[in-house]
Amino acid sequence: MAALETSTFSEAFSMKGGDGPDGYAKNSTFQRGVVDATKELLSKAIAENLDIEILSSSKTFTIADLGCSVGPNTFYSVQNILEAVEYKCQTQGLNAEMPEFQVVFNDNTPNDFNTLFKSLPQDRRYYAVGVPGSFYGRLFPNASVQVVHSSYANHWLSRVPKEVADRNSPAWNKGRIHYSNSTDAVLKAYEAQYAEDMECFLNVRAQEIVYGGLMVLIIIGRPDGTPHSLSQANMTFQILGSCLVDLVRKGIVDEKKVDSFNLPMYCMSPGEVEAAVGRNGCFSMERIENLPAFAPPDNVSKAKLLATHMRAAMEGVVKQHFGEEILDEVFDLYLKKIEEQSSIFDAGKLISFLVVLKRKA
Amino acid sequence: MAALETSTFSEAFSMKGGDGPDGYAKNSTFQRGVVDATKELLSKAIAENLDIEILSSSKTFTIADLGCSVGPNTFYSVQNILEAVEYKCQTQGLNAEMPEFQVVFNDNTPNDFNTLFKSLPQDRRYYAVGVPGSFYGRLFPNASVQVVHSSYANHWLSRVPKEVADRNSPAWNKGRIHYSNSTDAVLKAYEAQYAEDMECFLNVRAQEIVYGGLMVLIIIGRPDGTPHSLSQANMTFQILGSCLVDLVRKGIVDEKKVDSFNLPMYCMSPGEVEAAVGRNGCFSMERIENLPAFAPPDNVSKAKLLATHMRAAMEGVVKQHFGEEILDEVFDLYLKKIEEQSSIFDAGKLISFLVVLKRKA
Repeated sequence: MAALETSTFSEAFSMKGGDGPDGYAKNSTFQRGVVDATKELLSKAIAENLDIEILSSSKTFTIADLGCSVGPNTFYSVQNILEAVEYKCQTQGLNAEMPEFQVVFNDNTPNDFNTLFKSLPQDRRYYAVGVPGSFYGRLFPNASVQVVHSSYANHWLSRVPKEVADRNSPAWNKGRIHYSNSTDAVLKAYEAQYAEDMECFLNVRAQEIVYGGLMVLIIIGRPDGTPHSLSQANMTFQILGSCLVDLVRKGIVDEKKVDSFNLPMYCMSPGEVEAAVGRNGCFSMERIENLPAFAPPDNVSKAKLLATHMRAAMEGVVKQHFGEEILDEVFDLYLKKIEEQSSIFDAGKLISFLVVLKRKA
Repeated sequence: MAALETSTFSEAFSMKGGDGPDGYAKNSTFQRGVVDATKELLSKAIAENLDIEILSSSKTFTIADLGCSVGPNTFYSVQNILEAVEYKCQTQGLNAEMPEFQVVFNDNTPNDFNTLFKSLPQDRRYYAVGVPGSFYGRLFPNASVQVVHSSYANHWLSRVPKEVADRNSPAWNKGRIHYSNSTDAVLKAYEAQYAEDMECFLNVRAQEIVYGGLMVLIIIGRPDGTPHSLSQANMTFQILGSCLVDLVRKGIVDEKKVDSFNLPMYCMSPGEVEAAVGRNGCFSMERIENLPAFAPPDNVSKAKLLATHMRAAMEGVVKQHFGEEILDEVFDLYLKKIEEQSSIFDAGKLISFLVVLKRKA
C-alpha cells in the first residue's frame, strides 16, 4: 500500500478545547439546539433508509462522527443514531443478530482528543475510537463504516483558496476576510475551492462507507437563490472582518495582516449539495430538508450567544494569524457590534439543512 | 448490548506526556534498546507463526499496540510488525491480496493522546486510531484484531491490592511501597492481584483477537526461580521507597502518606506467564524467550539513565499521591542513591522476555 493520501487541509482549524468557560464544550448551545431539532428527523431517516441487510452483514456496526470537537454534542448525536439502529433491529426481529457498536470520533489533529476521551459517557454501549485527521482525506479502511455523521462541519473548507491571499492575483481579497462581501473574482475562487473540497469529501467517503451505508450531514448554509452577501452566517463573518479593520485603524493590528487573512468557510445551498452529489455519482440522495430554526430561550441574549459561540469557533484561526493578545479586544468589539446591529437576526437568511445520502452498490 | 465491562483499572497510571525534557517521549531509551533487540525476533515470529489464511481472510489487517504511551517507540514497533506482515504476504505470493493496515494505539485515558496524534509518522502506511482505556477491560469489538502487541506494560497491575493499604489487614504494607521487600501476606496479595489481572487480560484479548491471530508481549520480569527481592526492577522500586522514607524523616512527607502508598507493579517470571496461558486455554504458546540484555552506550551513565526513566514512568503515580511539590526532591535523591548503590546493576537479576501467543480456533 502506498502512503495514504495526505490531506491538503491546514490542520490549524479546530474548536477551542478544554472545558473552560470559553471552550467549545461549554459554548455549543446553537449546535445543541440543532441536535435536538434533528433527533427525530435522524431517527426517522435511519428507520426508513437503513437497509436490513446491513444490520446482519457485519458483526460490528461502525458509526463515525466527523468534526466531533470535544463533546458533548457528538455524544448526543452518536447515541441518537445508535438507538435508532437498535430500534430498527428490534422492529425487524433482529434482536439475536444485534451487532456490537463502534463509534469513531474524528476531528483535525490539533483537536483536544484528551478532553474528548476523558468526557466519554461512562455508560456507553459502544467501543470508542479516536481518529485524527482532515475529513478531506482518507480516514478509514475501505468499506468499514456503516453510518457517517457530520454536524456543522462541512462549511469549513480544506483551506483558504491560495489566490485570495496573493497580492498579485486579481482575486486578492484586500481589506476583507471573507468572500461574501467581496469581488466576483474572490467569490469564484471560493466557489471553486468548495467544489473541489466537496468532490474530494464525497469521493473518499464513497470508499469508506459500505454499500447501502448512510451519510447524514447537517449543514449550515443559505437558502437556494439567496446571494452570499445576504446569508446570516456570512453577515456575521463580515462583522468580524469589520472588527479587525477597526483594530487596524486603532493601530493595534497591521493592515497587511488583515489583507492576508481569510476565513476558510463557505456557505453552501441545498442545490449546490445536490449538484455535487449528482456529479460524484456514488450516493443516492435519500432526503434533503431544512431543519427548524433554533430559537434560544427568552432570557438568553441572541447577540451574546452568537458572540460567545463565534469566539469558541473562531478563536483558533484568529489567534494563529494575529496572535493571542488581540483576542479579548476583537471579540469584545464583536459582541458590541452584534448588539448594535441586532437586525441581522431578522434580515439575514440562515438555514440549517439535513442531507441523507446512501452509498450505492 | 449491555454496557461494556467497565475496567477496574485506576486510570491514574500513565507515562508523563508532552515532549518536554522530563516526558516519556524523551526518556524511553531503555525501552528503545529493547525495541531494537526485539526487531529481528519479532519479524521472525511473524514470519513463522502468522497463518497465511489470516492474510487473505480480511480486507483490513489490524495491529493494536497496548500501553503505547506517546511514542516514538510505539511507532517503531508497529512499523516493524507491519513490515513483517507485508514481507510475509510478498513471500507467499499474496501481493495482490495485500490488506489495508489499521493500527490501534491504546493506553489509559489520561495518556497524552494529543501528543501521540501530533507525532504520528507523516509517511505512515496505515490508518491510525486511538483507543483510550485500560487493557484489563474490553477495548475492541469481537474478533477484530489480527496482531496485538504490548511492550513494557504488563508489569502494571490493574490496581494496588486493596488489603495492602488497609491498616486493619494482616497484609498492611506499612513503611514500604512495594511487595518485594515485604511480608509474605503482602507478597500473596500482590500474587493474587497479578493472577486475577493476567486471567482478565487473556480473557478479553481472546474475545478481541481473530482465530489464528497473534499476541506478542514484551515483559520485564525476573528469571524463573529468582526471589522477588533479588529482581533488579524490584530493587529499584525499593530504593524509591527508601527515598520516600527519608523524606518522612526530614519531615517533608507525612508517614501515613507513605504507609498508604504502594506501587501497582508486579515482576513476573516466564513460568508464571506460561501457567496463566495454560489456565486460560484460548492461546497456544508459540514462543517464549529471553531478550538480549540492553547495554547503554559507554558514555551514558546507567544510573542517570535509570533515574530519568524512573521519573518519566513513575512521576504520575507519585504526584497523584504525594503532590507535585516533592517530585524534584524525591527524584534527585533517587539519582543520588542509585549512583551510590550502582552495584545493583551487577547483582540484581533482570530479564526482558518475549512471549508469542496464537489465538486457538
